[in-house]
Amino acid sequence: VQEIRIAYLGFGNVGRALDDLFAQKRDELRDNPGFEIKVTGVATGGHGMAVDAKGLNMQALRKAKDISAYSSMHLIDVFDFIRNCQANVIFENTPVNYQTGQPAISHIKAALDRGMHAITANKGPVVHAYRELSELADRNGCRFLFESTVMDGAPIFSLFREALPGANLKSFSGVLNSTTNMILTRMEAGDGFEEAVSYCQEIGIAETDPSGDIDGWDASVKIAALATVLMDIPLKPIEVQRKGIREISKSDVKKAQQNGKRWKLVCSARRVENGVEAKVSPSLVGPESPLFGVMGTSSIIQFETDVLGVLSVIESDPGPRTTAYGLYADFLNANR
Amino acid sequence: VQEIRIAYLGFGNVGRALDDLFAQKRDELRDNPGFEIKVTGVATGGHGMAVDAKGLNMQALRKAKDISAYSSMHLIDVFDFIRNCQANVIFENTPVNYQTGQPAISHIKAALDRGMHAITANKGPVVHAYRELSELADRNGCRFLFESTVMDGAPIFSLFREALPGANLKSFSGVLNSTTNMILTRMEAGDGFEEAVSYCQEIGIAETDPSGDIDGWDASVKIAALATVLMDIPLKPIEVQRKGIREISKSDVKKAQQNGKRWKLVCSARRVENGVEAKVSPSLVGPESPLFGVMGTSSIIQFETDVLGVLSVIESDPGPRTTAYGLYADFLNANR
Repeated sequence: VQEIRIAYLGFGNVGRALDDLFAQKRDELRDNPGFEIKVTGVATGGHGMAVDAKGLNMQALRKAKDISAYSSMHLIDVFDFIRNCQANVIFENTPVNYQTGQPAISHIKAALDRGMHAITANKGPVVHAYRELSELADRNGCRFLFESTVMDGAPIFSLFREALPGANLKSFSGVLNSTTNMILTRMEAGDGFEEAVSYCQEIGIAETDPSGDIDGWDASVKIAALATVLMDIPLKPIEVQRKGIREISKSDVKKAQQNGKRWKLVCSARRVENGVEAKVSPSLVGPESPLFGVMGTSSIIQFETDVLGVLSVIESDPGPRTTAYGLYADFLNANR
Repeated sequence: VQEIRIAYLGFGNVGRALDDLFAQKRDELRDNPGFEIKVTGVATGGHGMAVDAKGLNMQALRKAKDISAYSSMHLIDVFDFIRNCQANVIFENTPVNYQTGQPAISHIKAALDRGMHAITANKGPVVHAYRELSELADRNGCRFLFESTVMDGAPIFSLFREALPGANLKSFSGVLNSTTNMILTRMEAGDGFEEAVSYCQEIGIAETDPSGDIDGWDASVKIAALATVLMDIPLKPIEVQRKGIREISKSDVKKAQQNGKRWKLVCSARRVENGVEAKVSPSLVGPESPLFGVMGTSSIIQFETDVLGVLSVIESDPGPRTTAYGLYADFLNANR
């Protein structure tokens, strides 16, 4: 049995769900591939930081108001935490910064510089520093992985990396933003726009300021991440032609229903001669499209390659637990 | 650049499509991962066999009535071919034998015994000898791979093997037989059952005796392959509770349409306490199901695991070229 030391940098819903998943999988991991997991660092947003090379007591720590009481040493800041967490793998799950990707990029660099695998559900570093971080990981013999950044735990990046070798991606399209899809689903059920937004805020999938979802920014960031990684064409979110769902009215939704159709916020990108053309925009889809049945927080992506017909992947009913699985899958792939 | 020698055992539509794909990808393969492909053996059903360690001229050979004229030596039978093809990788694509998996199993054994990777689109060996062949491959440091046996080139086995590490499959369901799905699609467009069957025979997706598809045997074999490999529970096609589409009438199809539904031949399997419960049976599906929009020769599978919500994969418009890609992907994975 091989001991693997992990550290959580950012310990919100996703971090806690990942910790639960590691607990659930403990016996399986010990049997095959033979890993014993030890948590040697936890850095939270508002409850302090703790490191201990002997392993932290997660049950006690998760109930604590200030976890620094559990630390084997005093820590000055997050970089001090990274230097002293003694982990083989660091899970970077601090809040996303769409504009610059910081400070997550610096956290990941610091981890990779020390030869740790860096795994994240944070889209910022992928969109703003994919090549740099991947090259840094290569040089240091470790991995920078981020399966959970698009479609939660559904295998998208690993699908191309591992299961579609030699396939060249020509275009993709899909429904990638859960909040807007839920808003449109609720509007079909009779909600007004504002009502639907409030519902999403209540169930915790929309922010207090929901404009990042509604105006298509989150979708643009996901398109940028996919194009950057899967087409190897660096694309910034600002370069995505962007239109959100703000102008879709209750009567638009009703009219579509009467015609047997639905509005979906469709993300798409297509390789062109000098790069990539990318767009997010509301579109009418009919029941002949696999997008039609994708309701609520579910999502779909359709890939057009040079070797297959259109290949679609649908993820139903995601949550923190599925995002956690994406991080866990990256963990297993990094430690093969 | 590393030379890799390949041999085609069985050279029908799929074998030829694979040869085309290798030709199309020649420059890409040379650049990355740095492979030079040489065909050192071809065994056909009715046009003889040829081996040549210096490499066969495929353009000339593909036009020949009897390819044995191109052989560097006289070959007695298929096993003599396997012994003398000097390949690193053998592609076994002889016709499927649902009852016993033979002679393909013996071909693959002979290849693995000699340390060659064996790659096949033939479901027989998977259903009748998966464990034996996989263990033989392991002992000899080579691979037995078969991505193309279910859903053509869509990544299904490699998805679990490579992109869903640590996930346990609890159940799956889907539309896996193209011919019956096309028959039902044609019946929705107004064809009678016999008419729809004739259409499928004309376009080459149904046999002269179409009962293997219509009575659910092909679907049962695919269910057995998936359960055997992905759930690690050996399941024989005969153990699948089986009902085909023979009893679906034109008026059944019309009635379903009037209710906004469709008949689909649904394959499913579920892990239970003492093994697996598996079934193929016509089912009514509505537009809320991802199965609803899967028309013609397209196919879908939905996976329920212990770590994600339902994950669906849809392959649209397959053909020999997509089956060839599954073999090609296996080739790249075997030679990593």
